[in-house]
Amino acid sequence: MMPAMKNKQITLASRPTGVPAMDNFATVDAEVPQPKDGEVLVRTRYLSVDPYMRGRMSDRKSYVAPFAVNEVMNGGVVGEVVKSRSASFKPGDIVTGQLGWQLYSVAAAGELRKVDPNLAPVTTALGVLGMPGLTAYFGLVDIGKPREGETIVVSGAAGAVGMTVCQIAKINGCAVVGIAGSEEKNEYLEHELWVDRTINYKTAEDMKQAVNDACPNGIDIYFDNVGGAVSDAVMPFINKAARIIICGQISLYNLEHPDVGPRPQPYLLVKSAVMQGFIITDYGPRFAEGVKHLGQWLREGKMKYAENIVDGFENTPRAFLGLFSGENLGKQLVRVEE
Amino acid sequence: MMPAMKNKQITLASRPTGVPAMDNFATVDAEVPQPKDGEVLVRTRYLSVDPYMRGRMSDRKSYVAPFAVNEVMNGGVVGEVVKSRSASFKPGDIVTGQLGWQLYSVAAAGELRKVDPNLAPVTTALGVLGMPGLTAYFGLVDIGKPREGETIVVSGAAGAVGMTVCQIAKINGCAVVGIAGSEEKNEYLEHELWVDRTINYKTAEDMKQAVNDACPNGIDIYFDNVGGAVSDAVMPFINKAARIIICGQISLYNLEHPDVGPRPQPYLLVKSAVMQGFIITDYGPRFAEGVKHLGQWLREGKMKYAENIVDGFENTPRAFLGLFSGENLGKQLVRVEE
Repeated sequence: MMPAMKNKQITLASRPTGVPAMDNFATVDAEVPQPKDGEVLVRTRYLSVDPYMRGRMSDRKSYVAPFAVNEVMNGGVVGEVVKSRSASFKPGDIVTGQLGWQLYSVAAAGELRKVDPNLAPVTTALGVLGMPGLTAYFGLVDIGKPREGETIVVSGAAGAVGMTVCQIAKINGCAVVGIAGSEEKNEYLEHELWVDRTINYKTAEDMKQAVNDACPNGIDIYFDNVGGAVSDAVMPFINKAARIIICGQISLYNLEHPDVGPRPQPYLLVKSAVMQGFIITDYGPRFAEGVKHLGQWLREGKMKYAENIVDGFENTPRAFLGLFSGENLGKQLVRVEE
Repeated sequence: MMPAMKNKQITLASRPTGVPAMDNFATVDAEVPQPKDGEVLVRTRYLSVDPYMRGRMSDRKSYVAPFAVNEVMNGGVVGEVVKSRSASFKPGDIVTGQLGWQLYSVAAAGELRKVDPNLAPVTTALGVLGMPGLTAYFGLVDIGKPREGETIVVSGAAGAVGMTVCQIAKINGCAVVGIAGSEEKNEYLEHELWVDRTINYKTAEDMKQAVNDACPNGIDIYFDNVGGAVSDAVMPFINKAARIIICGQISLYNLEHPDVGPRPQPYLLVKSAVMQGFIITDYGPRFAEGVKHLGQWLREGKMKYAENIVDGFENTPRAFLGLFSGENLGKQLVRVEE
């Protein structure tokens, strides 16, 4: 029997300045929306919270439009179809898409993708087989072009993207150096994911020295999720023709004004190196290729993933805020309903 | 009749800290060297002085080895063969190569390339048909990938590399914005080279505003010879998928310690943009392609070049130092002998 259908939503109550806080969000009651022709009603099971959402909370031009104040936040969702007015979906189907932070969402059939719960746990659609996994895959494979024997440094190595990067790099025969912010994370990286060396940026006395020690052959690839002072310590050690992938800059997202640091251009110049930003949606036409490889590595046991799951819809803002204090090992999710 | 053969050399007398000065150089008398089998004796006609040489004066690892103290400086030379013990060259041949700052040099035949004085003035072998021209060509064509209708900003636009970049960009149908340091240079760029808009970085009150005004459609390509504050003003206006070519960073070469500035990574991230350094010697196998195109544009009148020629071997250090105060319009050369 269908549970009583009451909707709840989390909205952007106000724009943060600097570090976001709980009062930037509001939880409100709402009607359950009704699907029109070609649409589907989805009950939210899991919500994804991701660092890039911080950018959308500011009223700044970026690669995705800002969230509007008093509108429902949104992001990656895994849910179950409860009503369908589309031939593509039937009640009970598990789907994923970019939906609101709410218990029930209506979406056009074209905005959803079916998830097969027999292939892998459904949460992987938000992690290793979803945006973070694809981000790792295309950033590393397409821009990083890893070759056997090369050294790669990964910042934010214990996050959802970072740990996938580490593993794809190992599959490609690279020496992998992971940078993360706790001993627990670094132990996971070394013992579970076979990362060769790790650096704890919160306890390292001299980050440049730590990077130098960890990379006796220099750095061929730097997969950067963090930016700021961590990257400043990495740049002096890049090798000729190094590739630097700018995937995220989480250390800078909460700054009210851009900070300053040593310029990276001189390193790029003397090393004929390339530094490239990218956005995963640029790779839309090639998503199937990424999912195929990632799924195969999972099935073959060549790839693991970690999830940090917070229970309860109302805890979504707290889970999001935890990303900026580095609380998550792996993909940060909110379980709204099993 | 052969003139009396006495050699003179300019050596690196001491390493500069900060801006180099005359006393970092010494002029010394020396023997005229004698070619062995397979070698050639060359009398220097023109010497090239280039910004990259500043890097070699410091005892720092870079893409070329440092000059040694008390050794002869070297760089691009055009000269005349006066003795040959190689079947490839005969007396009277005009040749170019990387030779010493001296009146007479001995070189292995393989280190020299013949210059045909009937095709173009011999000085072009050190400018538009030499390293600076090739640097402009491969940097812009290979990394910049200019497309019709795009906007390109060129810093150091009135230098030997910059003015060639401006013209190749015009040939490719781009809107070209040149940044240089004097009204004279900017008038030359606009009136002789058909550059669309120019900015004088020395007199602009607000560089960011000036760049914004000059680039109403944003910036698709930034060809950077200068770095530092000029680049800081350019980065905020790059478009999606912009290409930033790091060719030189002359504003930073004389700094004793790396300075700081706004980090460019966030711009690369939100614009899926690429920033790439390169060294012209990387393109060695493709030089013939570059010379062919540049030579054709010259013959067709699609490309001009400017030279700033200082007379007299002993004035070579002064000509070099002038590069850092922006004295040269176009290629800076020293005429040792007509």
